[in-house]
Amino acid sequence: MSVPAATVGMVPAVGRPPDVEDLVARALRGEHRAVARLISLVETDTAAGRALLREVAARLAPHTGRAHVVGLTGPPGVGKSTSTSALVAALRRRGRRVGVLAVDPSSPFSGGALLGDRVRMGEHATDEGVFIRSMASRGHLGGLAWSTPQALRVLDAAGCDVVLVETVGVGQSEIEIVALADTTVVLLAPGMGDGVQAAKAGILEVADVLAVNKADHRGARRTVRDLEHAIAMSADGRVGGAGWTRPVVSTVAVRSEGIDDLVAALDAHREWLDDTGARAVRRRARAAAEIEAIALEQVRARIGDVRGAGALPGLADRVMAGDLDPYRAADALLDSAHRTRES
Amino acid sequence: MSVPAATVGMVPAVGRPPDVEDLVARALRGEHRAVARLISLVETDTAAGRALLREVAARLAPHTGRAHVVGLTGPPGVGKSTSTSALVAALRRRGRRVGVLAVDPSSPFSGGALLGDRVRMGEHATDEGVFIRSMASRGHLGGLAWSTPQALRVLDAAGCDVVLVETVGVGQSEIEIVALADTTVVLLAPGMGDGVQAAKAGILEVADVLAVNKADHRGARRTVRDLEHAIAMSADGRVGGAGWTRPVVSTVAVRSEGIDDLVAALDAHREWLDDTGARAVRRRARAAAEIEAIALEQVRARIGDVRGAGALPGLADRVMAGDLDPYRAADALLDSAHRTRES
Repeated sequence: MSVPAATVGMVPAVGRPPDVEDLVARALRGEHRAVARLISLVETDTAAGRALLREVAARLAPHTGRAHVVGLTGPPGVGKSTSTSALVAALRRRGRRVGVLAVDPSSPFSGGALLGDRVRMGEHATDEGVFIRSMASRGHLGGLAWSTPQALRVLDAAGCDVVLVETVGVGQSEIEIVALADTTVVLLAPGMGDGVQAAKAGILEVADVLAVNKADHRGARRTVRDLEHAIAMSADGRVGGAGWTRPVVSTVAVRSEGIDDLVAALDAHREWLDDTGARAVRRRARAAAEIEAIALEQVRARIGDVRGAGALPGLADRVMAGDLDPYRAADALLDSAHRTRES
Repeated sequence: MSVPAATVGMVPAVGRPPDVEDLVARALRGEHRAVARLISLVETDTAAGRALLREVAARLAPHTGRAHVVGLTGPPGVGKSTSTSALVAALRRRGRRVGVLAVDPSSPFSGGALLGDRVRMGEHATDEGVFIRSMASRGHLGGLAWSTPQALRVLDAAGCDVVLVETVGVGQSEIEIVALADTTVVLLAPGMGDGVQAAKAGILEVADVLAVNKADHRGARRTVRDLEHAIAMSADGRVGGAGWTRPVVSTVAVRSEGIDDLVAALDAHREWLDDTGARAVRRRARAAAEIEAIALEQVRARIGDVRGAGALPGLADRVMAGDLDPYRAADALLDSAHRTRES
């Protein structure tokens, strides 16, 4: 039995404790409902959820590492969701299974991703070879760094050939996607204004492939030329990036123009990563970042657990009163968190 | 001797180890050079820097807690820097000492804040009662959460009556500013498009005061009306926010119109905070968040310190190979970090 991709986000994580062994077995066969349930589990931030999550991670570990993880980022309004949707269609025509993680850190308050242009994904809703999931930032620092790689592992283990991770391309999220992706696509568009120009140097550093979307708009050729010039002048700042010449692809995603070129660029980069051993370098960096994020999340969770016991409020009061500085308070907090763990 | 505000960012943190006792004494007297040096110290991310920082924090602790911390946030292009500059002028006319922390998480790659419209601050460059500092995200999660409150303490101890913290209003930074500020101002402008509309609910939750800037543009009245309606329908999601009616102020910051109204709204909110005891509630939450951020930063630093010893790369290799899941790897990492600390 399979369930349309559109329902992936709608399966609740609550209820009776799940049979993780069975869920993982079904997810490995690519069952949408099981994949959805597992992603909901890895997003859950409760003590019970965390225990389940460890079991999920342990069971998935031997089945991961195959998917080509492609990050898509760029400024708001550049056409990320449209490009993602067009890429999904192009990859499906090639018979590949595709996962999409739409990461939206711009909505930390609502606890849910903004909808809107993501409805365009609706065309893939009934395709069994497509897994689509919106992930919201969990409202605290490190939330995305921690939960996105876990969701990625689920899609990887479920047999996705490619996982597209789409983020709002502003600041921190770009770093995070770089830490996750084998291949990072930076999308730009002509006429995006000075902000883009100013950030261009930074954007180039994280890109493996550049796409100028809305290539039918005025100024597109110039944007492409400017980018090619800037690329020639700049170094690739990514781990394991040296020796790869970053291509600039022109697309009109809304009409699927240039999307085949974009797929070709992604495939070429994947091949280059494998041939040079750069993929292993990146995956090692990604695993290290993931381990570190989980470690910090665990410390945070422990701090949260001891909060109820009164350590943090008492320390905060003393800092407020000026008779303790926040560094010594942090020492005391870590000590109490550590004691909680030992006991 | 005093130094113009414009040089605050230009004093290097390197060189011979500073005399912290002397620096703090001079900062408490409001000397710009000492304030600049201390902020540079708290931004420094080296083992030596961290030790100095503890000394700085301990010496500042008894002298903090007086400043009214005002966060300014809103979407790019709304006029945050212009509004900040106009607010500085209005507060100076009232004889208040003003600190400005311009936090720019959009430039994590360059290691420095983007310049550009911040040059408008130049008009305050020779005013001894104004302290201006740009802070860049330190390129990793938690960097701002950790260093911004420290910089804020320096400005507070230096005798600033008001500290304005200006952030790019996208996602995570909004949460951080809320965790820092006594009063949060959300700036909007007419005709900012659908993105703003969509995010409005989330934005309202963090605002104590709303300002519709560019109030001379078409659609401004409607934006104000929409906001007032939305406010009436929504709850204040902030800690200690219940019972305060969020005002909507119209401004044309570039001509300083409406800025007196904005100052009046800030003062009214500050008074309300004091009268109701809400200020203590918020400051306690802020201190708790600060302690937690420092604790996590310390764990991260310890992980960084053990990285060289090989714990993390080895663990990452085992996760890549699928014979260790990232959770057990994180356990092992924390154990090795803790052993490092004990020894």
